[in-house]
Amino acid sequence: MKPIQVGLLGIGTVGSGVFNVLARNQDEISRRAGRGIEITMVADLDVERAKAVVGDGIQVVNDARAIIANPDIDIVIELIGGYGIARALVLEAIAAGKHVVTANKALLAVHGTEIFAAASAKGVMVAFEAAVAGGIPIIKALREGLTANRIQWLAGIINGTTNFILSEMRSKGLDFDVVLKEAQRLGYAEADPTFDIEGVDAAHKVTLMSAIAFGIPVQFDKAYVEGITKLGAADIKYAEQLGYRIKLLGITKRADKGIELRVHPSLVPSKRLIANVEGAMNAVVVQGDAVGTTLYYGKGAGSEPTASAVIADLVDIARLHTADPEHRVPHLAFQANTLADAMGTLPVLPMSEVVTSYYLRLRVADQAGVLAKVTGLLAEAGVSIDAVLQREADEVGGEGSTQTDLIILTHDTREGTMDAVIAQMQALPTVLAPITRIRKEELN
Amino acid sequence: MKPIQVGLLGIGTVGSGVFNVLARNQDEISRRAGRGIEITMVADLDVERAKAVVGDGIQVVNDARAIIANPDIDIVIELIGGYGIARALVLEAIAAGKHVVTANKALLAVHGTEIFAAASAKGVMVAFEAAVAGGIPIIKALREGLTANRIQWLAGIINGTTNFILSEMRSKGLDFDVVLKEAQRLGYAEADPTFDIEGVDAAHKVTLMSAIAFGIPVQFDKAYVEGITKLGAADIKYAEQLGYRIKLLGITKRADKGIELRVHPSLVPSKRLIANVEGAMNAVVVQGDAVGTTLYYGKGAGSEPTASAVIADLVDIARLHTADPEHRVPHLAFQANTLADAMGTLPVLPMSEVVTSYYLRLRVADQAGVLAKVTGLLAEAGVSIDAVLQREADEVGGEGSTQTDLIILTHDTREGTMDAVIAQMQALPTVLAPITRIRKEELN
Repeated sequence: MKPIQVGLLGIGTVGSGVFNVLARNQDEISRRAGRGIEITMVADLDVERAKAVVGDGIQVVNDARAIIANPDIDIVIELIGGYGIARALVLEAIAAGKHVVTANKALLAVHGTEIFAAASAKGVMVAFEAAVAGGIPIIKALREGLTANRIQWLAGIINGTTNFILSEMRSKGLDFDVVLKEAQRLGYAEADPTFDIEGVDAAHKVTLMSAIAFGIPVQFDKAYVEGITKLGAADIKYAEQLGYRIKLLGITKRADKGIELRVHPSLVPSKRLIANVEGAMNAVVVQGDAVGTTLYYGKGAGSEPTASAVIADLVDIARLHTADPEHRVPHLAFQANTLADAMGTLPVLPMSEVVTSYYLRLRVADQAGVLAKVTGLLAEAGVSIDAVLQREADEVGGEGSTQTDLIILTHDTREGTMDAVIAQMQALPTVLAPITRIRKEELN
Repeated sequence: MKPIQVGLLGIGTVGSGVFNVLARNQDEISRRAGRGIEITMVADLDVERAKAVVGDGIQVVNDARAIIANPDIDIVIELIGGYGIARALVLEAIAAGKHVVTANKALLAVHGTEIFAAASAKGVMVAFEAAVAGGIPIIKALREGLTANRIQWLAGIINGTTNFILSEMRSKGLDFDVVLKEAQRLGYAEADPTFDIEGVDAAHKVTLMSAIAFGIPVQFDKAYVEGITKLGAADIKYAEQLGYRIKLLGITKRADKGIELRVHPSLVPSKRLIANVEGAMNAVVVQGDAVGTTLYYGKGAGSEPTASAVIADLVDIARLHTADPEHRVPHLAFQANTLADAMGTLPVLPMSEVVTSYYLRLRVADQAGVLAKVTGLLAEAGVSIDAVLQREADEVGGEGSTQTDLIILTHDTREGTMDAVIAQMQALPTVLAPITRIRKEELN
């Protein structure tokens, strides 16, 4: 089956991420889509820089309209940003019968109604997973995963710049101005940070989510927008004392008389998962009448996280585009005829080959030399120790006890190796009960 | 366009959830799917009970094969469970050219390879979002949302019974046996809880996720399975002291030589979001090479959460089934021609109509009567107070200060009302600086 041909408008941060991820994961992506997906043309004002990223195999032009005019291009990816030339180019691409994938939340928040209407009339798709919450597939969750629900509300941390600033203000007790400069220095905030710190970027995104969640037109002009510039360290401290964290939330909610659509700093109970989303990470919590609470968390920005979302849209379009139902969404995400190959190259390993870290608890005689013997056995086996906790005998067994607990955390070790050394430790006369072994996963 | 016709095999907990949610959200679901979705036949051994749930409008039979034999049925939903008759019925439905939607993790974990091969050969879809993590659209995330990524690993809390037990053991310091009885009493654990507490249910689910994440065949027999029955309160306490929580995790990971596939209790750093998932909630964290870390959280079981997943699959099949590209996945999840209606019935509200709760901080003169005056104004305006924090003057302004901070948390109030009473409070001679107002969202 002929590969889908894609034209890229803009090869900046996200554009190069899309190119790199598509190149790196070419095989996996093609298998999942059921056909190849190829970037065949790139447009960028800086042709030299573009050529440096994509090499010689792809045609680079400085005029986006050359891509739109090319009849072989199936999908146009708009990564220019902003409301200016991007609007014209997106509408022209649609008029030319191309599907459009975009990360441009500003464009869609302001001109979405016009753009979606044009696409609908023309019978092409406009996909924008990358426009909201970076790599988190939240648009797909709202549009498809939660489609059985009447959405009651959703609330999101959807701007990494402001969440980074708020996390720093809280952890360091500093005021907004100080932390903003730090954020700019570290690259979490732009030289002109207005869209982020004034909540405009979050408002673009929550406007798009409200349209999908409630089936209403995109109405950015009706959103209430308030940023974080007036927050002080004192309020963050008082909120903490009262059991709350302060986050900039994009909120949209079904109320009796209509839909709330607002962005502003909010106190959130510290025990909520979303209150514990720190740094530049994003998260969206959605309440549906059937499913209840669901939450989606991940990187809200960045070259490859955003590229992940762009490519997910490309694959969706490629799948839907294909008439053959077998190639639409394969049951197991890969075409059936490639599974047999996978069996050979990717066997499921026996447990003895697993590498992880461990918690061990030994009930031992409270004597000199026990710790040395045990750690000696571990060292001989090449097991590296992370931490040791040794309790006092009477804490564990009561007064006059001659037994105690010895707790050891190890670094990563092969399970087979751990099995063997546990057997050795178990055989020691000073180890008085079956050793407890619980595996440990850092999940980082 | 003719509605899609669906036959339900089994009208127990999940089956009645599917019926109820489809009935309740009929309009929204049809709009999103682009066509109606109708349950036209139900099979259950207990015909009387089935009729009590679905009423007279739907044909109820006691033989599932009557549904499979009905040429008008497009999709069969298998909610019988288990490996027994369900296997035969699913294979027969596929042979009869029906698409299948199922919540049956056990069936697919053990017979998935055979079932998916049969479906692939016949050109029908087998969808199973409901088989893993209830209403959380994790299968869709792995299969579509994260399709650009080489998945490195995933780890999930995917059994609510065991997570409830572990949460209780930790919060109450009790041993496993005691908490199990409590869980059974409360309905979080079955009379025969073996599949849950021995980790088998979690293993079924992580096996399915490993197949999708890594493109390998479904290999439940190769999974390492260890439950929570040997965990004691002491280990949970020691883990906590070391900065960890203990969770039953289903883990699958790409290693050098192959794929790890395992279920067992694991220590997880307390600061990880997933370590803070409590009670019967589920969560899956996935690491992809482009997107990095993503996490999906929600209800892992229950009538309507599971139904939410079943119906999402129905809508997916309905959308893919429809030849017309405009009706496949509408840009904004609703058909374009229904948006105009929504504009009228669901207006975006002005901010003054929003109802939420508030944090107020007033810099006031440290005098008698200030608190009474302020709370008096709030009471007159009908604003209900949740908490008050009053600082000592010298804590706030230093020794000898005559000013202090008065912090008030309110209950839900209309924003317009709050605007007015803030203006009144601001006008008091004892309020010495602009009042800080930060909205508060309980997000429950």
